[in-house]
Amino acid sequence: MTARIFPTAQDAENAFYEALERCDLEGMMAVWAEDEDIVCVHPAGLRLTGQDQVRESWARMFAAGPRARVHITNQVAISGMMLAVHSVHENFTIEGQRRGDAGPVPIVATNVYLRTAAGWRMIVHHASPAPGGQQPPAPREGPPKILH
Amino acid sequence: MTARIFPTAQDAENAFYEALERCDLEGMMAVWAEDEDIVCVHPAGLRLTGQDQVRESWARMFAAGPRARVHITNQVAISGMMLAVHSVHENFTIEGQRRGDAGPVPIVATNVYLRTAAGWRMIVHHASPAPGGQQPPAPREGPPKILH
Repeated sequence: MTARIFPTAQDAENAFYEALERCDLEGMMAVWAEDEDIVCVHPAGLRLTGQDQVRESWARMFAAGPRARVHITNQVAISGMMLAVHSVHENFTIEGQRRGDAGPVPIVATNVYLRTAAGWRMIVHHASPAPGGQQPPAPREGPPKILH
Repeated sequence: MTARIFPTAQDAENAFYEALERCDLEGMMAVWAEDEDIVCVHPAGLRLTGQDQVRESWARMFAAGPRARVHITNQVAISGMMLAVHSVHENFTIEGQRRGDAGPVPIVATNVYLRTAAGWRMIVHHASPAPGGQQPPAPREGPPKILH
């Protein structure tokens, strides 16, 4: 398998959510940096660190096969030369459920990407369920803030 | 009030947790970047963005006054020129409770810092409760990974 190169952090983020929807373990792990300092926190989960823990957690989640779509909204992005941080809402639609049905609560995710010799890769994914009820006003959506 | 300058992301992180322990709202807000793109997710909370939402949330949390100590462990730090990311465990000890008592579950936090003209400031704080039970092995603790 040829490793995929992600020219931007957004490309890595798109590949991350595509792999998540398809339950594609190799596609998922191709998004992560080859680094023992990677950090992954699934909703209501422990912090996992390193390739082995992160891969094993996705393998377990993907075992049942694809059954959800995820729609990303309210992205706030801040990009430096070497690191990029995206804060997003993950809106899951479970199979058989129409978007717009009262579904699972949205997930808040903080995704951090690192520019490596092999393009941008994920180094942190921290996801947690947002409680239902009133959402604060969404921030303006615009182009990412570029620091360099 | 003279604004405090934090020469490193770690200085900003230390000031963040000191302000949190002391329930010091001005000290807390002095750590945050003066930016509408700041993001704060309290444990089991909605995502808050911008100065007003973030300040209001800390004011509400601090209203009861100091009653907890927080001990930071298992830091994983990755630092670029403009952004630094710290993943930590926040271990709270409530007043009247000895450390080591079975207390509240640890909180996993992802803290992101931005180098501004006025030193390093926080731009993202994302905290979520880690479930009790078995903790995966802690990563090695060492100096932060410096990318530049």
